[in-house]
Amino acid sequence: MDATRIKEALQMRKMIDVLLDPNLYADLVLKDGYFINVITREIYQADVAVKGEHVLMVGDAGDLVGPKTTVENIRGKFVSPGFIDSHMHFESAMLTCTEFSKLSIPTGTSTLIGDPHEIGNVLGVEGMKAMIEEAKTLPNRIRFTVPCAVPDAPGLETSGYDVNSKDMKDLLPDPYVQGIGEIQSFSNIKPVYDHAPELIDDLVAAVSYANSIGKTVEGNAPGLFGKELAAHIISGGTHVSCHETTTKEETVEKLRYGVSVFMREGSSQRNMADCIRAITEEGLDSRRAILVSDDMVPEDLLKYGHMNDIIRRTIAEGIDPVEAIQMATINPATHFGFKDVGVIAPGKRADIAVISDLTEMTVDQVYLGGKKFAEKGELTVDIAPYIYAEHVKNSVKRKPVTKEELAITASGSRARVRAIEAIPDQNLTGGKEFTLNVKEGIVQPCLQQDVLPLLVIERHGRTGKIGKTFLHGFDLKSGAIAESVAHDTHNIIVTGTNYEDMVTAVNRVIAMNGGIAMIKDSKVVGDLPLKIGGLMTDELTGKEMSERVSELSRLAKEVLGCGIHVPFMHLSFWSLVTSPKWKITDMGLIDVNKFEVIPTIV
Amino acid sequence: MDATRIKEALQMRKMIDVLLDPNLYADLVLKDGYFINVITREIYQADVAVKGEHVLMVGDAGDLVGPKTTVENIRGKFVSPGFIDSHMHFESAMLTCTEFSKLSIPTGTSTLIGDPHEIGNVLGVEGMKAMIEEAKTLPNRIRFTVPCAVPDAPGLETSGYDVNSKDMKDLLPDPYVQGIGEIQSFSNIKPVYDHAPELIDDLVAAVSYANSIGKTVEGNAPGLFGKELAAHIISGGTHVSCHETTTKEETVEKLRYGVSVFMREGSSQRNMADCIRAITEEGLDSRRAILVSDDMVPEDLLKYGHMNDIIRRTIAEGIDPVEAIQMATINPATHFGFKDVGVIAPGKRADIAVISDLTEMTVDQVYLGGKKFAEKGELTVDIAPYIYAEHVKNSVKRKPVTKEELAITASGSRARVRAIEAIPDQNLTGGKEFTLNVKEGIVQPCLQQDVLPLLVIERHGRTGKIGKTFLHGFDLKSGAIAESVAHDTHNIIVTGTNYEDMVTAVNRVIAMNGGIAMIKDSKVVGDLPLKIGGLMTDELTGKEMSERVSELSRLAKEVLGCGIHVPFMHLSFWSLVTSPKWKITDMGLIDVNKFEVIPTIV
Repeated sequence: MDATRIKEALQMRKMIDVLLDPNLYADLVLKDGYFINVITREIYQADVAVKGEHVLMVGDAGDLVGPKTTVENIRGKFVSPGFIDSHMHFESAMLTCTEFSKLSIPTGTSTLIGDPHEIGNVLGVEGMKAMIEEAKTLPNRIRFTVPCAVPDAPGLETSGYDVNSKDMKDLLPDPYVQGIGEIQSFSNIKPVYDHAPELIDDLVAAVSYANSIGKTVEGNAPGLFGKELAAHIISGGTHVSCHETTTKEETVEKLRYGVSVFMREGSSQRNMADCIRAITEEGLDSRRAILVSDDMVPEDLLKYGHMNDIIRRTIAEGIDPVEAIQMATINPATHFGFKDVGVIAPGKRADIAVISDLTEMTVDQVYLGGKKFAEKGELTVDIAPYIYAEHVKNSVKRKPVTKEELAITASGSRARVRAIEAIPDQNLTGGKEFTLNVKEGIVQPCLQQDVLPLLVIERHGRTGKIGKTFLHGFDLKSGAIAESVAHDTHNIIVTGTNYEDMVTAVNRVIAMNGGIAMIKDSKVVGDLPLKIGGLMTDELTGKEMSERVSELSRLAKEVLGCGIHVPFMHLSFWSLVTSPKWKITDMGLIDVNKFEVIPTIV
Repeated sequence: MDATRIKEALQMRKMIDVLLDPNLYADLVLKDGYFINVITREIYQADVAVKGEHVLMVGDAGDLVGPKTTVENIRGKFVSPGFIDSHMHFESAMLTCTEFSKLSIPTGTSTLIGDPHEIGNVLGVEGMKAMIEEAKTLPNRIRFTVPCAVPDAPGLETSGYDVNSKDMKDLLPDPYVQGIGEIQSFSNIKPVYDHAPELIDDLVAAVSYANSIGKTVEGNAPGLFGKELAAHIISGGTHVSCHETTTKEETVEKLRYGVSVFMREGSSQRNMADCIRAITEEGLDSRRAILVSDDMVPEDLLKYGHMNDIIRRTIAEGIDPVEAIQMATINPATHFGFKDVGVIAPGKRADIAVISDLTEMTVDQVYLGGKKFAEKGELTVDIAPYIYAEHVKNSVKRKPVTKEELAITASGSRARVRAIEAIPDQNLTGGKEFTLNVKEGIVQPCLQQDVLPLLVIERHGRTGKIGKTFLHGFDLKSGAIAESVAHDTHNIIVTGTNYEDMVTAVNRVIAMNGGIAMIKDSKVVGDLPLKIGGLMTDELTGKEMSERVSELSRLAKEVLGCGIHVPFMHLSFWSLVTSPKWKITDMGLIDVNKFEVIPTIV
């Protein structure tokens, strides 16, 4: 029994006193609001009484109002449990948990389930622990679901550290660790089964240990049906989610199979409108339908909101507002087994969103643990910036590169090459062959055919390897873009219209100790240092990051002439070997379905 | 990590092989049935494939059928998860867990949450452990919710052993113990708070410990609303149930407050029809509506069934069949946090009820852990009788009583006395005063006014006390009835039309080492030995017990002329001090609301 629990017992005891001793009173009463009951799926007028961090009761709280009680009249407004984002990556916003939370709290989100998979790939267990320690300083509820298999595809890519079942004992017992995160290494379970069955043993071992200490496991099963879906579910211990479901048919199948469908509607990928049709058109019970963001960029958080915006969109698809709110409150709380959040009821944590417009999901006030933290979209309590230790800021372990290292070589004057085909707004890629000119043994980029070199440079100080292929469809007119954000192993990925700018771009990223660099004519067009694991920064606020990213996007378009929207975000996903078809890693061009390296020069 | 879990991991690994290796097959396929999906609330045609104890997948299982696969064609029949009874007392059936299970399994019930509160009152932790050990030998899933406060009302009654928070460490860690059972000592929370606040501290300590090791706590809040309900919920750790909710209004209030409402519909008390109106009339989300039996007598199990009959009644009240089945499958599984039962999905335990008629809830076949255990209402697998150790069969620690000990004395020729007023089919009682004749210092029973002596004789060898009062409304014409079943401390309770027969009845119960005895003119009219804690027997099957109880009821009516139906069942509840108004214990006449002993002679 730890001190936290004993303190909680003392708080509970005090609440019983307040409820049964007529001389004791609530600390706070939200008076006369419309109460959104996510258990019964009702709205009715009721007060909410709070003592300390917890809800005392909901109903007529008149006789709990004493001389020192704060009474907040919210007549005409709606009272909802704070929202839960059940699957998100802080790294996607390139912000610390702190700066992300400062944008997210005023929108009514009180609980974040972060997946530190990215920093885990770069810095291993220690990197994840650094992030977990940050979360412990924050007033919102943050829990982590940690990867049990890093890298995603051993033998096909190089991460900074390897994580597997043996690391689970070091990570999972932490009370801030909810369980094992998306088991994406097993999304494509049949190829893994056929080519690397020992990974399945390791997964089952990790999952079994997690379950044995009461921890959960999240799945990741895009496109799986029938027997493969069943195998994925069983690999994850039978109680899993999927946040990469994209069609109504998949949603129906997964809900039927007992999967909690995390309907994704974040900044990059938007699948809710398709998934939700399983409810609106097929009338399925929605108790396992859950809304998540997965990836949010600061600009969207500032402009549109967070879970409140996702709920708003869900309502717009024809779901009743209370049912939509269930999908971001009681449904995820039930999925994760949270006993103290997700509903407003006696003894639960007073994490509350007061909403002034239910259709627009305008959040008026936010309470975390009974304390008002935001009003009218602004924080009302200062949250200090969090500075990471130096050891997580030295993650780029690579000397500057030369043109000789980066050049893709071939004999003769023309070469037949394979190129990854970009599909806008998708992690998926295609694959195509092209014929390119060769000059002095070096295969040349071809702007006419829109075929550029695409390289991944190992930067973790382990192998020094450079994987090389071509990219079609990036629509870049000049210069180069390099970055240390390159899913999931986060080596340095680079593409460009000429090798010289590519060298400069990569070396700029190395010099910054991680980040994004755009180069033209050997000069820096724009950059963004990301020192924390080469993924995030503790030097910018959310607003500053938003402005910086807008500026980089503008420069990419106007100066480099890139036709793709937010090109560095797209670039970062073309090394992700868990989604088909062809991808690039430090090992070379990968055929994801065959689970092997294939040559770039045909 | 214990061996059970490692074995489970190996089973999971094997299932993945069967799903992904085209040369491996299922052990069992239930073919072409209508699948009742309690997650999505749908019915559709699908096969169910099973490997070992677990479900492989649901859908078209054609290619999982190999040469050794057992294929059960169930076209036209319905496939449901096995039913869960979330709150029941084996003691109420006076049978061992084994004999109860033999009646219950063929009706489709696969999981029983037993509350060993009765044996706990008599034999303490050791008695409960004896029952838990029995459960471990059985093929159905049995889990226990154990009391954390015995006796219910310390200072007002004497149990065989006291149980409190200090015993939790000894009981709760057992994997067969689900958590703490109905905290009925705190049903009437305001009087407890006012008169014995130290009990609340002990409760909070027990609950906090239970939650800290992942165990649940069940509430018991009849008639509580608002602040008192909130205090009860918080005392129980915020995630509680109530199985004594009796009206629609109470159901609405409790569901709104986050309580899982265990709608009771057993042999003795039937509240479902009132409770369910919260769903049928008010349209509340039913995810926390759960069906339970609480008490079942063998006769009803044999005649009508168990959870299947309760589901049938619920459907008859206007609930859709799948929604009604949810209330005995996924809803309770979610309440308790069971990850492996309550739904049929990949990797879940293959506990399955095949139903031939959905409206009548006729159960055709029952599978437990993938193995067929019953067909057409009969067990298809032998389950051996279970014999309890001798030490639990010597629980009556009392020498024979004499008339001098039992007589209620008063001076003068007439006495004004208080009498407990029987209310048919209720645990609740009234209270009334009468004037009785006194002969040779002894207050005489009065058949004309229907006022008989009602006594409780301590039989645990602790105090030897005898509590004495009168009973009005039992409608007994001759003889006496005594029994060692007397809730909740289970001392010997006796009433009769004359002291001589009462003495003989009590001494017969003592001689049998517990049981029920009916005496007339000093002769045994009928009896039933209940040696296990004076509550149950391992000497009768369910069918034999049913016949024996019918015979006793008939004799009570025909020979003793008792106008009350099943009089020994009623008698056993008039010592239950957790429900108003007046009750009798070994300490005397109890005013439940005042939480004190009051004199019988005014």
